[in-house]
Amino acid sequence: MTPPRRPKPGRRRGPPPGRRPGPPSGGRERRRPEGNAGGARRRSGPAGALGGEQVEGRQAVRALLVAGRRRVKDLWLAEDLDQASIVSDIVELATELRVPVRRVSRAELEDEARSDAPQGVLAHAAPLPEVDFDTLCAPDPATGARPFLVVLDGVTDPQNVGAILRTAECAGATGAVLPRHRAAHVTPTVAKAASGAVEHLPMAVVAGLPAALARARELGVWAVGLDAAADTSLFDLPFTGEGVALVLGAEGRGLGRLTRARCDLTVSIPLRGALPSLNVSAAAALACFELARRRPL
Amino acid sequence: MTPPRRPKPGRRRGPPPGRRPGPPSGGRERRRPEGNAGGARRRSGPAGALGGEQVEGRQAVRALLVAGRRRVKDLWLAEDLDQASIVSDIVELATELRVPVRRVSRAELEDEARSDAPQGVLAHAAPLPEVDFDTLCAPDPATGARPFLVVLDGVTDPQNVGAILRTAECAGATGAVLPRHRAAHVTPTVAKAASGAVEHLPMAVVAGLPAALARARELGVWAVGLDAAADTSLFDLPFTGEGVALVLGAEGRGLGRLTRARCDLTVSIPLRGALPSLNVSAAAALACFELARRRPL
Repeated sequence: MTPPRRPKPGRRRGPPPGRRPGPPSGGRERRRPEGNAGGARRRSGPAGALGGEQVEGRQAVRALLVAGRRRVKDLWLAEDLDQASIVSDIVELATELRVPVRRVSRAELEDEARSDAPQGVLAHAAPLPEVDFDTLCAPDPATGARPFLVVLDGVTDPQNVGAILRTAECAGATGAVLPRHRAAHVTPTVAKAASGAVEHLPMAVVAGLPAALARARELGVWAVGLDAAADTSLFDLPFTGEGVALVLGAEGRGLGRLTRARCDLTVSIPLRGALPSLNVSAAAALACFELARRRPL
Repeated sequence: MTPPRRPKPGRRRGPPPGRRPGPPSGGRERRRPEGNAGGARRRSGPAGALGGEQVEGRQAVRALLVAGRRRVKDLWLAEDLDQASIVSDIVELATELRVPVRRVSRAELEDEARSDAPQGVLAHAAPLPEVDFDTLCAPDPATGARPFLVVLDGVTDPQNVGAILRTAECAGATGAVLPRHRAAHVTPTVAKAASGAVEHLPMAVVAGLPAALARARELGVWAVGLDAAADTSLFDLPFTGEGVALVLGAEGRGLGRLTRARCDLTVSIPLRGALPSLNVSAAAALACFELARRRPL
Protein backbone atom coordinates (compact mmCIF):
# COMPACT_ATOMS: atom_id res chain seq x y z
CA MET A 1 0.00 0.00 0.00
CA THR A 2 2.96 2.29 0.46
CA PRO A 3 4.17 3.76 -2.79
CA PRO A 4 7.85 3.38 -3.50
CA ARG A 5 9.82 6.60 -3.32
CA ARG A 6 10.90 8.01 -6.59
CA PRO A 7 13.53 10.66 -7.09
CA LYS A 8 12.27 14.22 -7.11
CA PRO A 9 12.12 15.78 -10.56
CA GLY A 10 14.97 18.18 -11.14
CA ARG A 11 14.62 21.88 -11.51
CA ARG A 12 12.47 22.48 -14.53
CA ARG A 13 13.25 25.61 -16.44
CA GLY A 14 10.97 26.75 -19.21
CA PRO A 15 11.78 28.82 -22.23
CA PRO A 16 12.72 32.46 -21.73
CA PRO A 17 9.59 34.47 -21.09
CA GLY A 18 9.86 36.62 -24.19
CA ARG A 19 11.21 40.04 -24.83
CA ARG A 20 8.26 42.16 -23.86
CA PRO A 21 8.69 43.04 -20.21
CA GLY A 22 5.85 45.34 -19.28
CA PRO A 23 6.49 48.66 -17.64
CA PRO A 24 6.88 48.38 -13.89
CA SER A 25 3.43 49.78 -13.35
CA GLY A 26 1.76 47.82 -16.16
CA GLY A 27 -0.47 44.81 -15.76
CA ARG A 28 -0.90 45.10 -12.03
CA GLU A 29 -4.08 44.03 -10.36
CA ARG A 30 -6.19 46.66 -8.77
CA ARG A 31 -5.12 47.01 -5.15
CA ARG A 32 -7.42 45.07 -2.89
CA PRO A 33 -6.65 44.53 0.76
CA GLU A 34 -6.76 40.91 1.76
CA GLY A 35 -6.76 39.41 5.21
CA ASN A 36 -6.91 35.94 6.65
CA ALA A 37 -10.60 36.05 7.42
CA GLY A 38 -12.66 33.54 5.53
CA GLY A 39 -15.27 35.89 4.13
CA ALA A 40 -16.78 35.14 0.74
CA ARG A 41 -14.47 36.34 -1.99
CA ARG A 42 -16.20 36.86 -5.29
CA ARG A 43 -14.45 37.01 -8.58
CA SER A 44 -14.55 40.36 -10.23
CA GLY A 45 -12.14 39.76 -13.10
CA PRO A 46 -13.01 38.66 -16.62
CA ALA A 47 -14.65 35.25 -17.00
CA GLY A 48 -12.14 32.47 -16.62
CA ALA A 49 -9.33 34.49 -15.13
CA LEU A 50 -7.63 32.61 -12.33
CA GLY A 51 -5.53 35.62 -11.46
CA GLY A 52 -2.09 35.06 -10.04
CA GLU A 53 -0.54 38.13 -11.72
CA GLN A 54 1.21 39.17 -8.52
CA VAL A 55 3.39 36.62 -6.74
CA GLU A 56 5.01 37.29 -3.37
CA GLY A 57 7.37 35.39 -1.12
CA ARG A 58 10.60 33.57 -1.83
CA GLN A 59 9.39 30.05 -2.50
CA ALA A 60 6.47 31.21 -4.64
CA VAL A 61 8.59 33.58 -6.75
CA ARG A 62 11.33 31.01 -7.16
CA ALA A 63 8.79 28.43 -8.35
CA LEU A 64 7.33 30.97 -10.80
CA LEU A 65 10.76 31.39 -12.38
CA VAL A 66 11.70 27.72 -12.27
CA ALA A 67 8.45 26.42 -13.74
CA GLY A 68 8.65 28.85 -16.65
CA ARG A 69 5.00 28.34 -17.59
CA ARG A 70 4.16 32.02 -17.89
CA ARG A 71 5.80 35.29 -18.77
CA VAL A 72 7.35 37.12 -15.82
CA LYS A 73 7.14 40.87 -16.31
CA ASP A 74 9.40 42.03 -13.55
CA LEU A 75 10.92 41.09 -10.22
CA TRP A 76 11.05 43.45 -7.25
CA LEU A 77 13.62 42.96 -4.51
CA ALA A 78 13.89 44.93 -1.30
CA GLU A 79 17.25 46.68 -1.10
CA ASP A 80 17.90 45.48 2.43
CA LEU A 81 17.38 41.78 1.69
CA ASP A 82 19.57 39.33 3.56
CA GLN A 83 21.84 37.08 1.53
CA ALA A 84 19.83 33.87 1.83
CA SER A 85 20.81 31.37 -0.83
CA ILE A 86 17.29 31.31 -2.20
CA VAL A 87 17.55 35.03 -2.93
CA SER A 88 20.72 34.67 -5.00
CA ASP A 89 19.06 31.70 -6.71
CA ILE A 90 16.10 33.93 -7.60
CA VAL A 91 18.34 36.67 -8.97
CA GLU A 92 20.30 34.14 -11.01
CA LEU A 93 17.13 32.66 -12.47
CA ALA A 94 15.73 36.10 -13.30
CA THR A 95 18.95 37.12 -15.03
CA GLU A 96 19.01 33.93 -17.03
CA LEU A 97 15.39 34.47 -18.09
CA ARG A 98 16.00 38.18 -18.84
CA VAL A 99 13.40 39.29 -16.33
CA PRO A 100 13.94 42.96 -15.36
CA VAL A 101 14.96 43.21 -11.70
CA ARG A 102 14.02 46.31 -9.71
CA ARG A 103 15.73 47.10 -6.41
CA VAL A 104 13.20 49.00 -4.32
CA SER A 105 13.06 50.24 -0.77
CA ARG A 106 11.46 47.97 1.80
CA ALA A 107 8.66 50.52 2.16
CA GLU A 108 7.95 50.54 -1.59
CA LEU A 109 7.84 46.77 -1.66
CA GLU A 110 5.57 46.51 1.38
CA ASP A 111 3.31 49.11 -0.18
CA GLU A 112 2.98 47.10 -3.38
CA ALA A 113 2.59 43.79 -1.52
CA ARG A 114 -0.82 42.37 -0.72
CA SER A 115 0.12 39.36 1.39
CA ASP A 116 1.19 39.57 5.01
CA ALA A 117 4.85 38.71 4.61
CA PRO A 118 6.28 39.10 1.08
CA GLN A 119 9.77 38.41 2.45
CA GLY A 120 11.23 41.22 0.36
CA VAL A 121 10.47 39.51 -2.96
CA LEU A 122 7.64 40.14 -5.39
CA ALA A 123 7.03 39.47 -9.11
CA HIS A 124 4.49 40.49 -11.71
CA ALA A 125 3.58 37.85 -14.28
CA ALA A 126 1.05 36.93 -16.92
CA PRO A 127 -2.15 35.45 -15.44
CA LEU A 128 -2.22 31.76 -14.60
CA PRO A 129 -3.30 29.63 -17.54
CA GLU A 130 -6.70 28.01 -17.13
CA VAL A 131 -7.19 24.39 -18.18
CA ASP A 132 -10.39 23.04 -19.72
CA PHE A 133 -12.34 20.91 -17.24
CA ASP A 134 -12.87 18.01 -19.69
CA THR A 135 -9.12 17.92 -20.30
CA LEU A 136 -8.51 17.61 -16.55
CA CYS A 137 -10.92 14.66 -16.46
CA ALA A 138 -9.10 12.71 -19.20
CA PRO A 139 -6.43 10.08 -18.50
CA ASP A 140 -2.85 11.18 -19.04
CA PRO A 141 -2.25 10.80 -22.79
CA ALA A 142 1.29 9.56 -22.24
CA THR A 143 0.89 7.17 -19.31
CA GLY A 144 -2.83 6.45 -19.24
CA ALA A 145 -2.87 7.39 -15.54
CA ARG A 146 -6.33 8.34 -14.33
CA PRO A 147 -6.93 11.86 -13.08
CA PHE A 148 -6.67 12.78 -9.40
CA LEU A 149 -8.44 16.10 -8.94
CA VAL A 150 -8.98 18.28 -5.91
CA VAL A 151 -12.19 20.29 -5.95
CA LEU A 152 -12.77 23.27 -3.66
CA ASP A 153 -16.40 23.82 -2.70
CA GLY A 154 -16.63 27.10 -0.84
CA VAL A 155 -13.16 27.08 0.70
CA THR A 156 -12.47 30.81 0.61
CA ASP A 157 -9.82 31.55 3.24
CA PRO A 158 -6.75 32.31 1.11
CA GLN A 159 -4.37 30.60 3.53
CA ASN A 160 -6.42 27.42 3.36
CA VAL A 161 -6.81 27.56 -0.42
CA GLY A 162 -3.06 28.01 -0.87
CA ALA A 163 -2.21 25.30 1.67
CA ILE A 164 -4.55 22.83 -0.04
CA LEU A 165 -3.08 23.53 -3.48
CA ARG A 166 0.43 22.97 -2.08
CA THR A 167 -0.53 19.69 -0.43
CA ALA A 168 -2.40 18.50 -3.51
CA GLU A 169 0.62 19.14 -5.71
CA CYS A 170 2.89 17.31 -3.27
CA ALA A 171 0.51 14.33 -3.26
CA GLY A 172 0.64 14.09 -7.05
CA ALA A 173 -2.80 15.51 -7.82
CA THR A 174 -3.21 16.06 -11.55
CA GLY A 175 -5.44 19.11 -11.27
CA ALA A 176 -7.50 21.46 -9.11
CA VAL A 177 -11.02 22.70 -9.74
CA LEU A 178 -12.34 26.03 -8.45
CA PRO A 179 -15.93 27.18 -8.76
CA ARG A 180 -16.31 30.52 -10.52
CA HIS A 181 -18.41 32.24 -7.89
CA ARG A 182 -17.22 31.01 -4.52
CA ALA A 183 -13.57 30.16 -4.93
CA ALA A 184 -10.76 32.35 -3.77
CA HIS A 185 -9.11 33.95 -6.74
CA VAL A 186 -5.37 33.21 -6.78
CA THR A 187 -4.43 36.31 -4.80
CA PRO A 188 -0.87 36.96 -3.61
CA THR A 189 -1.77 35.34 -0.27
CA VAL A 190 -3.07 32.20 -2.00
CA ALA A 191 0.00 32.03 -4.23
CA LYS A 192 2.34 32.52 -1.30
CA ALA A 193 0.66 29.85 0.84
CA ALA A 194 0.72 27.52 -2.17
CA SER A 195 4.51 27.95 -2.19
CA GLY A 196 4.74 27.52 -5.96
CA ALA A 197 2.05 24.85 -6.42
CA VAL A 198 0.01 27.15 -8.69
CA GLU A 199 2.90 27.07 -11.19
CA HIS A 200 2.72 23.29 -11.49
CA LEU A 201 -0.83 22.18 -10.76
CA PRO A 202 -3.23 22.53 -13.72
CA MET A 203 -6.36 24.41 -12.64
CA ALA A 204 -9.86 24.65 -14.09
CA VAL A 205 -12.62 27.09 -13.19
CA VAL A 206 -16.20 25.84 -13.51
CA ALA A 207 -19.53 27.64 -13.45
CA GLY A 208 -21.18 25.18 -11.06
CA LEU A 209 -19.75 22.28 -9.09
CA PRO A 210 -22.79 19.95 -9.17
CA ALA A 211 -22.88 20.07 -12.99
CA ALA A 212 -19.11 19.66 -13.16
CA LEU A 213 -19.22 16.56 -10.94
CA ALA A 214 -21.97 15.09 -13.11
CA ARG A 215 -19.82 15.71 -16.18
CA ALA A 216 -16.79 14.17 -14.42
CA ARG A 217 -18.85 11.05 -13.75
CA GLU A 218 -19.64 10.76 -17.48
CA LEU A 219 -15.91 10.96 -18.12
CA GLY A 220 -15.13 8.17 -15.65
CA VAL A 221 -14.07 10.28 -12.68
CA TRP A 222 -15.63 9.46 -9.30
CA ALA A 223 -16.41 12.20 -6.81
CA VAL A 224 -15.40 11.55 -3.20
CA GLY A 225 -16.63 14.18 -0.76
CA LEU A 226 -15.04 14.79 2.61
CA ASP A 227 -17.89 15.18 5.08
CA ALA A 228 -17.63 15.01 8.87
CA ALA A 229 -21.05 13.32 9.04
CA ALA A 230 -20.18 10.47 6.66
CA ASP A 231 -20.22 6.91 8.00
CA THR A 232 -17.41 5.58 5.84
CA SER A 233 -13.87 6.25 7.04
CA LEU A 234 -11.42 7.90 4.67
CA PHE A 235 -9.09 5.04 5.51
CA ASP A 236 -11.60 2.46 4.21
CA LEU A 237 -11.88 4.00 0.74
CA PRO A 238 -12.46 1.31 -1.87
CA PHE A 239 -10.53 3.14 -4.59
CA THR A 240 -7.42 1.68 -6.17
CA GLY A 241 -6.56 3.87 -9.11
CA GLU A 242 -9.80 4.97 -10.75
CA GLY A 243 -10.12 8.59 -11.74
CA VAL A 244 -11.16 10.46 -8.65
CA ALA A 245 -12.15 13.99 -7.68
CA LEU A 246 -11.73 14.80 -3.99
CA VAL A 247 -14.34 17.38 -3.00
CA LEU A 248 -13.59 19.63 -0.02
CA GLY A 249 -16.16 21.86 1.64
CA ALA A 250 -15.83 25.04 3.61
CA GLU A 251 -14.79 24.87 7.26
CA GLY A 252 -17.86 24.97 9.45
CA ARG A 253 -20.49 24.76 6.71
CA GLY A 254 -19.01 21.73 4.96
CA LEU A 255 -20.09 20.62 1.51
CA GLY A 256 -22.91 22.42 -0.26
CA ARG A 257 -26.14 20.43 -0.43
CA LEU A 258 -26.18 20.05 -4.21
CA THR A 259 -22.47 19.27 -4.32
CA ARG A 260 -22.83 16.57 -1.67
CA ALA A 261 -25.70 15.04 -3.60
CA ARG A 262 -23.43 14.69 -6.64
CA CYS A 263 -20.69 12.87 -4.72
CA ASP A 264 -20.51 9.14 -5.41
CA LEU A 265 -19.21 8.58 -1.91
CA THR A 266 -18.66 10.69 1.17
CA VAL A 267 -16.05 9.85 3.78
CA SER A 268 -15.05 11.22 7.17
CA ILE A 269 -11.82 11.23 9.11
CA PRO A 270 -12.07 9.31 12.39
CA LEU A 271 -11.14 11.64 15.25
CA ARG A 272 -9.82 10.50 18.62
CA GLY A 273 -9.85 13.73 20.60
CA ALA A 274 -12.34 16.13 22.13
CA LEU A 275 -12.39 18.66 19.29
CA PRO A 276 -15.19 18.31 16.76
CA SER A 277 -13.19 18.85 13.56
CA LEU A 278 -9.88 19.24 11.80
CA ASN A 279 -8.86 22.34 9.92
CA VAL A 280 -9.87 21.89 6.27
CA SER A 281 -6.27 21.99 5.07
CA ALA A 282 -5.21 19.29 7.55
CA ALA A 283 -8.18 17.18 6.44
CA ALA A 284 -7.20 17.81 2.82
CA ALA A 285 -3.64 16.63 3.52
CA LEU A 286 -4.91 13.35 4.97
CA ALA A 287 -7.34 12.78 2.10
CA CYS A 288 -4.86 13.71 -0.65
CA PHE A 289 -2.18 11.36 0.65
CA GLU A 290 -4.66 8.56 1.31
CA LEU A 291 -5.76 8.78 -2.33
CA ALA A 292 -2.12 9.05 -3.43
CA ARG A 293 -1.24 5.83 -1.61
CA ARG A 294 -3.98 4.01 -3.49
CA ARG A 295 -2.90 5.17 -6.92
CA PRO A 296 -0.45 3.15 -8.99
CA LEU A 297 2.64 5.16 -9.88
CA MET B 1 -5.15 -1.12 10.32
CA THR B 2 -8.03 1.29 10.32
CA PRO B 3 -9.25 2.09 13.78
CA PRO B 4 -12.94 1.63 14.39
CA ARG B 5 -14.86 4.86 14.79
CA ARG B 6 -15.89 5.65 18.27
CA PRO B 7 -18.51 8.17 19.24
CA LYS B 8 -17.24 11.66 19.89
CA PRO B 9 -17.08 12.51 23.57
CA GLY B 10 -19.89 14.74 24.65
CA ARG B 11 -19.50 18.30 25.77
CA ARG B 12 -17.33 18.25 28.85
CA ARG B 13 -18.06 20.91 31.35
CA GLY B 14 -15.77 21.46 34.23
CA PRO B 15 -16.50 22.84 37.64
CA PRO B 16 -17.44 26.51 37.92
CA PRO B 17 -14.30 28.60 37.71
CA GLY B 18 -14.54 30.07 41.16
CA ARG B 19 -15.90 33.26 42.53
CA ARG B 20 -12.95 35.54 41.97
CA PRO B 21 -13.40 37.13 38.59
CA GLY B 22 -10.56 39.60 38.15
CA PRO B 23 -11.22 43.19 37.23
CA PRO B 24 -11.64 43.67 33.49
CA SER B 25 -8.24 45.23 33.20
CA GLY B 26 -6.48 42.79 35.51
CA GLY B 27 -4.14 40.01 34.54
CA ARG B 28 -3.79 40.96 30.91
CA GLU B 29 -0.63 40.19 29.03
CA ARG B 30 1.50 43.05 27.92
CA ARG B 31 0.42 44.10 24.46
CA ARG B 32 2.69 42.66 21.80
CA PRO B 33 1.91 42.86 18.12
CA GLU B 34 2.06 39.48 16.43
CA GLY B 35 2.05 38.65 12.77
CA ASN B 36 2.19 35.51 10.69
CA ALA B 37 5.86 35.70 9.95
CA GLY B 38 7.92 32.87 11.33
CA GLY B 39 10.53 34.88 13.18
CA ALA B 40 12.02 33.49 16.34
CA ARG B 41 9.75 34.20 19.26
CA ARG B 42 11.48 34.02 22.57
CA ARG B 43 9.76 33.53 25.85
CA SER B 44 9.93 36.49 28.13
CA GLY B 45 7.52 35.38 30.84
CA PRO B 46 8.37 33.59 34.07
CA ALA B 47 9.93 30.16 33.76
CA GLY B 48 7.35 27.54 32.94
CA ALA B 49 4.60 29.86 31.81
CA LEU B 50 2.90 28.54 28.71
CA GLY B 51 0.84 31.68 28.42
CA GLY B 52 -2.61 31.42 26.93
CA GLU B 53 -4.13 34.11 29.18
CA GLN B 54 -5.89 35.77 26.25
CA VAL B 55 -8.08 33.62 24.03
CA GLU B 56 -9.70 34.95 20.86
CA GLY B 57 -12.09 33.55 18.27
CA ARG B 58 -15.33 31.66 18.64
CA GLN B 59 -14.13 28.06 18.60
CA ALA B 60 -11.21 28.77 20.91
CA VAL B 61 -13.30 30.69 23.46
CA ARG B 62 -16.08 28.11 23.37
CA ALA B 63 -13.55 25.33 24.02
CA LEU B 64 -12.06 27.33 26.91
CA LEU B 65 -15.50 27.47 28.55
CA VAL B 66 -16.47 23.89 27.73
CA ALA B 67 -13.23 22.31 28.91
CA GLY B 68 -13.39 24.14 32.25
CA ARG B 69 -9.76 23.41 33.06
CA ARG B 70 -8.88 26.95 34.07
CA ARG B 71 -10.50 30.01 35.56
CA VAL B 72 -12.03 32.39 33.04
CA LYS B 73 -11.78 35.98 34.25
CA ASP B 74 -14.04 37.69 31.78
CA LEU B 75 -15.57 37.40 28.34
CA TRP B 76 -15.69 40.30 25.89
CA LEU B 77 -18.26 40.35 23.11
CA ALA B 78 -18.51 42.92 20.33
CA GLU B 79 -21.86 44.72 20.50
CA ASP B 80 -22.54 44.23 16.79
CA LEU B 81 -22.04 40.44 16.80
CA ASP B 82 -24.22 38.43 14.48
CA GLN B 83 -26.53 35.83 16.01
CA ALA B 84 -24.55 32.72 15.12
CA SER B 85 -25.56 29.77 17.24
CA ILE B 86 -22.04 29.41 18.56
CA VAL B 87 -22.25 32.92 20.00
CA SER B 88 -25.42 32.19 21.97
CA ASP B 89 -23.79 28.95 23.06
CA ILE B 90 -20.81 30.92 24.36
CA VAL B 91 -23.04 33.36 26.24
CA GLU B 92 -25.02 30.50 27.75
CA LEU B 93 -21.85 28.75 28.90
CA ALA B 94 -20.43 31.95 30.37
CA THR B 95 -23.64 32.63 32.28
CA GLU B 96 -23.72 29.11 33.61
CA LEU B 97 -20.10 29.40 34.74
CA ARG B 98 -20.68 32.92 36.21
CA VAL B 99 -18.06 34.48 33.97
CA PRO B 100 -18.56 38.26 33.75
CA VAL B 101 -19.58 39.24 30.21
CA ARG B 102 -18.62 42.66 28.85
CA ARG B 103 -20.31 44.08 25.79
CA VAL B 104 -17.79 46.34 24.10
CA SER B 105 -17.64 48.25 20.84
CA ARG B 106 -16.07 46.49 17.89
CA ALA B 107 -13.24 49.04 18.01
CA GLU B 108 -12.54 48.33 21.68
CA LEU B 109 -12.45 44.61 21.01
CA GLU B 110 -10.19 44.94 17.98
CA ASP B 111 -7.90 47.16 20.01
CA GLU B 112 -7.60 44.54 22.75
CA ALA B 113 -7.23 41.66 20.27
CA ARG B 114 -3.83 40.42 19.20
CA SER B 115 -4.80 37.86 16.57
CA ASP B 116 -5.87 38.80 13.05
CA ALA B 117 -9.53 37.90 13.30
CA PRO B 118 -10.94 37.62 16.83
CA GLN B 119 -14.45 37.22 15.38
CA GLY B 120 -15.88 39.59 17.98
CA VAL B 121 -15.15 37.24 20.89
CA LEU B 122 -12.31 37.37 23.41
CA ALA B 123 -11.69 35.99 26.90
CA HIS B 124 -9.15 36.47 29.66
CA ALA B 125 -8.24 33.39 31.66
CA ALA B 126 -5.72 31.93 34.06
CA PRO B 127 -2.53 30.76 32.31
CA LEU B 128 -2.52 27.30 30.77
CA PRO B 129 -1.44 24.63 33.25
CA GLU B 130 1.93 23.10 32.53
CA VAL B 131 2.39 19.35 32.86
CA ASP B 132 5.56 17.68 34.08
CA PHE B 133 7.48 16.05 31.24
CA ASP B 134 7.96 12.74 33.06
CA THR B 135 4.23 12.56 33.67
CA LEU B 136 3.61 13.00 29.92
CA CYS B 137 5.99 10.08 29.28
CA ALA B 138 4.15 7.67 31.58
CA PRO B 139 1.48 5.24 30.39
CA ASP B 140 -2.11 6.25 31.11
CA PRO B 141 -2.70 5.15 34.74
CA ALA B 142 -6.26 4.07 33.95
CA THR B 143 -5.89 2.29 30.62
CA GLY B 144 -2.17 1.58 30.43
CA ALA B 145 -2.12 3.20 26.98
CA ARG B 146 1.36 4.35 25.95
CA PRO B 147 1.98 8.03 25.42
CA PHE B 148 1.71 9.65 22.00
CA LEU B 149 3.54 12.97 22.17
CA VAL B 150 4.08 15.70 19.62
CA VAL B 151 7.31 17.63 20.06
CA LEU B 152 7.93 21.00 18.39
CA ASP B 153 11.58 21.69 17.56
CA GLY B 154 11.85 25.27 16.35
CA VAL B 155 8.37 25.58 14.85
CA THR B 156 7.72 29.23 15.65
CA ASP B 157 5.08 30.48 13.21
CA PRO B 158 2.03 30.84 15.46
CA GLN B 159 -0.40 29.66 12.77
CA ASN B 160 1.63 26.48 12.32
CA VAL B 161 2.02 25.88 16.06
CA GLY B 162 -1.72 26.27 16.57
CA ALA B 163 -2.60 24.13 13.57
CA ILE B 164 -0.29 21.34 14.75
CA LEU B 165 -1.75 21.37 18.27
CA ARG B 166 -5.26 21.14 16.81
CA THR B 167 -4.34 18.24 14.54
CA ALA B 168 -2.48 16.44 17.32
CA GLU B 169 -5.50 16.68 19.61
CA CYS B 170 -7.78 15.38 16.87
CA ALA B 171 -5.43 12.43 16.27
CA GLY B 172 -5.56 11.46 19.93
CA ALA B 173 -2.12 12.68 20.97
CA THR B 174 -1.71 12.47 24.73
CA GLY B 175 0.57 15.51 25.04
CA ALA B 176 2.64 18.20 23.38
CA VAL B 177 6.17 19.27 24.25
CA LEU B 178 7.53 22.77 23.61
CA PRO B 179 11.14 23.81 24.13
CA ARG B 180 11.55 26.73 26.50
CA HIS B 181 13.68 28.91 24.27
CA ARG B 182 12.46 28.39 20.74
CA ALA B 183 8.80 27.50 21.00
CA ALA B 184 6.03 29.89 20.27
CA HIS B 185 4.38 30.91 23.49
CA VAL B 186 0.64 30.21 23.38
CA THR B 187 -0.27 33.64 22.04
CA PRO B 188 -3.82 34.54 21.02
CA THR B 189 -2.94 33.59 17.42
CA VAL B 190 -1.67 30.17 18.51
CA ALA B 191 -4.75 29.59 20.67
CA LYS B 192 -7.09 30.66 17.89
CA ALA B 193 -5.43 28.45 15.27
CA ALA B 194 -5.50 25.59 17.77
CA SER B 195 -9.27 26.03 17.88
CA GLY B 196 -9.52 24.87 21.49
CA ALA B 197 -6.86 22.15 21.42
CA VAL B 198 -4.80 23.94 24.09
CA GLU B 199 -7.68 23.39 26.53
CA HIS B 200 -7.56 19.62 26.10
CA LEU B 201 -4.00 18.65 25.16
CA PRO B 202 -1.60 18.39 28.12
CA MET B 203 1.54 20.43 27.43
CA ALA B 204 5.04 20.36 28.88
CA VAL B 205 7.84 22.89 28.47
CA VAL B 206 11.40 21.56 28.55
CA ALA B 207 14.75 23.31 28.80
CA GLY B 208 16.37 21.35 25.99
CA LEU B 209 14.91 18.89 23.50
CA PRO B 210 17.91 16.57 23.12
CA ALA B 211 18.01 15.94 26.88
CA ALA B 212 14.23 15.55 26.98
CA LEU B 213 14.31 12.94 24.21
CA ALA B 214 17.04 11.05 26.05
CA ARG B 215 14.90 11.07 29.18
CA ALA B 216 11.87 9.94 27.16
CA ARG B 217 13.88 6.99 25.88
CA GLU B 218 14.67 5.99 29.49
CA LEU B 219 10.95 6.09 30.18
CA GLY B 220 10.16 3.84 27.22
CA VAL B 221 9.11 6.49 24.70
CA TRP B 222 10.65 6.32 21.22
CA ALA B 223 11.46 9.49 19.32
CA VAL B 224 10.44 9.57 15.65
CA GLY B 225 11.70 12.60 13.76
CA LEU B 226 10.11 13.87 10.57
CA ASP B 227 12.98 14.71 8.22
CA ALA B 228 12.72 15.28 4.47
CA ALA B 229 16.12 13.63 3.98
CA ALA B 230 15.23 10.37 5.76
CA ASP B 231 15.22 7.15 3.75
CA THR B 232 12.41 5.44 5.62
CA SER B 233 8.88 6.36 4.58
CA LEU B 234 6.44 7.55 7.22
CA PHE B 235 4.08 4.94 5.85
CA ASP B 236 6.56 2.13 6.60
CA LEU B 237 6.84 2.95 10.31
CA PRO B 238 7.42 -0.20 12.35
CA PHE B 239 5.50 1.11 15.38
CA THR B 240 2.40 -0.60 16.65
CA GLY B 241 1.55 0.99 19.94
CA GLU B 242 4.79 1.69 21.76
CA GLY B 243 5.12 5.04 23.47
CA VAL B 244 6.19 7.48 20.79
CA ALA B 245 7.22 11.12 20.52
CA LEU B 246 6.80 12.63 17.06
CA VAL B 247 9.44 15.34 16.59
CA LEU B 248 8.71 18.13 14.11
CA GLY B 249 11.32 20.61 12.90
CA ALA B 250 11.03 24.13 11.59
CA GLU B 251 9.98 24.68 7.99
CA GLY B 252 13.06 25.15 5.89
CA ARG B 253 15.69 24.37 8.50
CA GLY B 254 14.16 21.08 9.61
CA LEU B 255 15.23 19.31 12.80
CA GLY B 256 18.07 20.71 14.86
CA ARG B 257 21.28 18.68 14.64
CA LEU B 258 21.32 17.59 18.28
CA THR B 259 17.61 16.84 18.24
CA ARG B 260 17.92 14.70 15.12
CA ALA B 261 20.79 12.79 16.72
CA ARG B 262 18.49 11.89 19.62
CA CYS B 263 15.74 10.49 17.39
CA ASP B 264 15.54 6.70 17.36
CA LEU B 265 14.22 6.86 13.81
CA THR B 266 13.70 9.54 11.19
CA VAL B 267 11.09 9.24 8.48
CA SER B 268 10.10 11.26 5.43
CA ILE B 269 6.87 11.68 3.52
CA PRO B 270 7.12 10.44 -0.07
CA LEU B 271 6.20 13.29 -2.41
CA ARG B 272 4.88 12.86 -5.95
CA GLY B 273 4.96 16.40 -7.26
CA ALA B 274 7.47 19.03 -8.29
CA LEU B 275 7.54 20.96 -5.01
CA PRO B 276 10.32 20.09 -2.59
CA SER B 277 8.33 20.01 0.64
CA LEU B 278 5.01 20.07 2.44
CA ASN B 279 4.02 22.77 4.89
CA VAL B 280 5.01 21.60 8.38
CA SER B 281 1.42 21.51 9.58
CA ALA B 282 0.34 19.35 6.62
CA ALA B 283 3.28 17.03 7.30
CA ALA B 284 2.30 16.96 10.97
CA ALA B 285 -1.26 15.95 10.06
CA LEU B 286 -0.02 13.01 8.01
CA ALA B 287 2.40 11.88 10.70
CA CYS B 288 -0.07 12.27 13.59
CA PHE B 289 -2.76 10.25 11.87
CA GLU B 290 -0.31 7.61 10.66
CA LEU B 291 0.77 7.11 14.27
CA ALA B 292 -2.86 7.19 15.41
CA ARG B 293 -3.75 4.39 12.99
CA ARG B 294 -1.03 2.22 14.49
CA ARG B 295 -2.10 2.72 18.07
CA PRO B 296 -4.55 0.35 19.72
CA LEU B 297 -7.65 2.14 20.96
